[in-house]
Amino acid sequence: MCRFIVYTGHPVLLHDILVKPTNSLVCQSMHARETDQTLNGDGFGLGWYEHSIDNSPGLFRSTQPAWNNLNLVSLTGKIKSTSFFAHVRAASQGGVANDNCHPFMFKNILFMHNGTIYGFQKIKRQIRRILDDDIYDWVKGQTDSEHFFALFIQTLRENNLTTKNMDSFYNNLVLTINRLRALLKEHNAEALAYLNIAITDGERTLVCRYVTDPKAEASTLHYAVGDKFVYEHAAGHMYPVKDKPGAVLVSSEKLTDYNFEWHMVTQNYCILIEEDLTTTLKEMDNCIN
Amino acid sequence: MCRFIVYTGHPVLLHDILVKPTNSLVCQSMHARETDQTLNGDGFGLGWYEHSIDNSPGLFRSTQPAWNNLNLVSLTGKIKSTSFFAHVRAASQGGVANDNCHPFMFKNILFMHNGTIYGFQKIKRQIRRILDDDIYDWVKGQTDSEHFFALFIQTLRENNLTTKNMDSFYNNLVLTINRLRALLKEHNAEALAYLNIAITDGERTLVCRYVTDPKAEASTLHYAVGDKFVYEHAAGHMYPVKDKPGAVLVSSEKLTDYNFEWHMVTQNYCILIEEDLTTTLKEMDNCIN
Amino acid sequence: MCRFIVYTGHPVLLHDILVKPTNSLVCQSMHARETDQTLNGDGFGLGWYEHSIDNSPGLFRSTQPAWNNLNLVSLTGKIKSTSFFAHVRAASQGGVANDNCHPFMFKNILFMHNGTIYGFQKIKRQIRRILDDDIYDWVKGQTDSEHFFALFIQTLRENNLTTKNMDSFYNNLVLTINRLRALLKEHNAEALAYLNIAITDGERTLVCRYVTDPKAEASTLHYAVGDKFVYEHAAGHMYPVKDKPGAVLVSSEKLTDYNFEWHMVTQNYCILIEEDLTTTLKEMDNCIN
Amino acid sequence: MCRFIVYTGHPVLLHDILVKPTNSLVCQSMHARETDQTLNGDGFGLGWYEHSIDNSPGLFRSTQPAWNNLNLVSLTGKIKSTSFFAHVRAASQGGVANDNCHPFMFKNILFMHNGTIYGFQKIKRQIRRILDDDIYDWVKGQTDSEHFFALFIQTLRENNLTTKNMDSFYNNLVLTINRLRALLKEHNAEALAYLNIAITDGERTLVCRYVTDPKAEASTLHYAVGDKFVYEHAAGHMYPVKDKPGAVLVSSEKLTDYNFEWHMVTQNYCILIEEDLTTTLKEMDNCIN
Repeated sequence: MCRFIVYTGHPVLLHDILVKPTNSLVCQSMHARETDQTLNGDGFGLGWYEHSIDNSPGLFRSTQPAWNNLNLVSLTGKIKSTSFFAHVRAASQGGVANDNCHPFMFKNILFMHNGTIYGFQKIKRQIRRILDDDIYDWVKGQTDSEHFFALFIQTLRENNLTTKNMDSFYNNLVLTINRLRALLKEHNAEALAYLNIAITDGERTLVCRYVTDPKAEASTLHYAVGDKFVYEHAAGHMYPVKDKPGAVLVSSEKLTDYNFEWHMVTQNYCILIEEDLTTTLKEMDNCIN
Repeated sequence: MCRFIVYTGHPVLLHDILVKPTNSLVCQSMHARETDQTLNGDGFGLGWYEHSIDNSPGLFRSTQPAWNNLNLVSLTGKIKSTSFFAHVRAASQGGVANDNCHPFMFKNILFMHNGTIYGFQKIKRQIRRILDDDIYDWVKGQTDSEHFFALFIQTLRENNLTTKNMDSFYNNLVLTINRLRALLKEHNAEALAYLNIAITDGERTLVCRYVTDPKAEASTLHYAVGDKFVYEHAAGHMYPVKDKPGAVLVSSEKLTDYNFEWHMVTQNYCILIEEDLTTTLKEMDNCIN
Repeated sequence: MCRFIVYTGHPVLLHDILVKPTNSLVCQSMHARETDQTLNGDGFGLGWYEHSIDNSPGLFRSTQPAWNNLNLVSLTGKIKSTSFFAHVRAASQGGVANDNCHPFMFKNILFMHNGTIYGFQKIKRQIRRILDDDIYDWVKGQTDSEHFFALFIQTLRENNLTTKNMDSFYNNLVLTINRLRALLKEHNAEALAYLNIAITDGERTLVCRYVTDPKAEASTLHYAVGDKFVYEHAAGHMYPVKDKPGAVLVSSEKLTDYNFEWHMVTQNYCILIEEDLTTTLKEMDNCIN
Repeated sequence: MCRFIVYTGHPVLLHDILVKPTNSLVCQSMHARETDQTLNGDGFGLGWYEHSIDNSPGLFRSTQPAWNNLNLVSLTGKIKSTSFFAHVRAASQGGVANDNCHPFMFKNILFMHNGTIYGFQKIKRQIRRILDDDIYDWVKGQTDSEHFFALFIQTLRENNLTTKNMDSFYNNLVLTINRLRALLKEHNAEALAYLNIAITDGERTLVCRYVTDPKAEASTLHYAVGDKFVYEHAAGHMYPVKDKPGAVLVSSEKLTDYNFEWHMVTQNYCILIEEDLTTTLKEMDNCIN
């Protein structure tokens, strides 16, 4: 079902979040704790912003498992970032290929997904038909995830919405989910879709824990807000907020054994992280019609 | 521009054709002789039939260059086949990915291409729109080549044609090329397309040397018909035909320095190889309207 | 701890043993059943004999996990063999690299190992020092396994032993294990070594389930002897022997749920498979001094 | 014969040196200009220092050719460094494997090599025998290059020399070359060795253009010293020095078409780059005995 991590806040060494913690993403690639599908060995991806250079993220993706990739270990030990996404994959829709690894990047926007859109094969053509030529050509892989992201970008454009304003950004996510649901219904496709999704433009970030059927249980999603995330004394810690938050982590699994640091995102809620790290949890009721 | 080799005939060790000759396909991956684009290092592919097992070919493709792939060297030393395709790639349309490596396989049919369809980006969506759902979903990559092959399969189905009859098989190739040309014209796309193409169902094989503009020069294509192809005394040889042919090779480049063994396929001709190895050269005049 | 499969007998489609069974080696790469270390995702290897061509085996190894390697699936569907080895790896000693994947090949001999030689780092140099130049240069990787195999070859040569005679072949395995134990002792290295080992020259095969400390429990090892192994009605079966055996399987794990078909090799026993498939279990008492 | 680039100076975006110039290292991987062996497609490597984090370099190596590695393109667009090494490989000694890709890293020291030690196979064991256990175990691959580097580290240790002092650093290079030459002589190995070598500790850097036989012609090696290297108006330029140098490039090939910016290192000279970028050319006469 894949696992992912979102970080935004003070510059942090990627290694301290992705490799070192007790239940780091690298650990989750071998032995995820909070899902039956413990193995996420069908590739990984890392996207990070370096705003001192430009607004588009760096991207490092590979079909080699995260746990035995020496380049990943070395890179994360030399890169600090204020905003990054990382993902380990268990392939469901779409084969094992670099182009099917998350995160996906469209210009300055990163996207990743944990879950499955069960009726996807029935609406894949319909999604592609909607897309403008440039977005159509941008799609390189076969996953439901990348197609959902393409639909997100298309919807953004059609509605003159933007990621630069949180309301607009969030509304576009809701519109895209509704559009997906309408397509599934129209084509008599299975309506069940697990949509733990993360999107960022490097400044504002959305992460939702969503499932189309309220009776189904969404995949786990946790967040931790604090002053800073520090790896010390052989363990990672999120320090408590002082005046205002300095670091926000959103992760499929708790990275540390300090449960008090972590909060489960309520099912069908979205976490909205502003540029100043103000973090809001919002019930996604407009999607549930 | 890619390079390819087609073999059909007596069972032959793949190594003797793909690795050992002076100008083997492995050599052509580093230093092709008969093209300006000497480097074909963006992956390779091998498809071969083992009719004692079933009718669908085996497929071995990788983005690693052919010249340093130890698996390729070992495999070809243990496999004999009566019909195989092999290809080394210089990427033009579509990135470097396993799904973009030739040959492509649809059920029991193999396809490979050396050339470029220059207006492809303008008609990619139109080609996909024509495809039946199963053929649409079968397409995994981004190349002009795979899309042309999808159109070939679609055309075969729409016209109730078959590869099991050489006239029907050949007619379908002509219909597909004409359909491509019509699409390019309709969408005001650049009409120039280099189409050195090989297709086989493991029994009958077509290889054409075709370019849409008669003023352009098609990529090289040679053939050799003989009793058998043998590697001995440190060189490959096609032995002369005795009663009837026992081996046919069609190759982007001459594999040996024995020029007398090789014949250039005339531009805009197609070579038709029957199951009994009867080989006919046919002018593709119906395509040039 | 790695998992492996040995087959010798009637020609069999590799796919029917490595891919199709309920608990095939491909399944074991993701979710091994009979070990705590369920994940064997650090590469795989396949070595098979094609005696109609020559005596040296074909070799296909990759660091990509077995479960998502399309080439592996396709190849095994087209190759039949009377003798093959296959292995999925969980790296312990030596990094994740093609040169560290099993089986290892020296001329016509294949070798694979499931286990760990705990004191290996202390005696690695000493092993290498013993080797003749050609064997020294043949070693390419960093594993305890490959070094043990090099010592086996060196010992064979020094004692004028051969794999062509089963007594000689078996004695050499015992000599090599004793030599290893002596080296470990001499250099005050940890003496514990898990040595589930398979060696073949394509005609005669040895597979042992051995651990240096009789109080430790060796890794599992099963065998099945029968008329032929057939995949039918969605399950693999070893048919009972009629007159004389036609197929022998030795495997880290039972491939099927039909327990009656499988026998556990007793700890510190070696299974000796002659060219005519006569199979003997021999207690390795000479090693336990 | 491989190609490499050394940079030290003001922080520079790696992309501006490795990807963008007319004759960038990525270009040289396909079509090197200043050597007969134009293809360097057997892997690449990148090592860079990020002193704000620590003193050990980041390392990114792959056997995929540099010209089609999207990760390399993306990474270099997000990393600035004051000191980095990059290398594209044409394999001579040692197979195509990540462990055989340059640069090699020992603690905080990077090393790369363009050339061949022809008698290497005869002295490989002798070199290894000299090494301390930790250095012995550090060697992972099969190349003459990595073994030379191991000998360099061993020699540094035996003589209490250091890279932190330029005389000491340089003397150790000379001692290592002499030791190599003595070994070659002692073992009647071919004495010819092409040693274009670069070594850095992230602060001080040595690059030599050396060949053991003064009648042989060393591989090309150029340097450019300036205020800064800038990519602008679709071309890279080394700006002239103002008061004191701000950037030093040493490269197998000229990166730009502006010949006046580049100087050929004289054969059997070494370029010594101090931490303040003071650059000295020194004749390596002590090596030529």
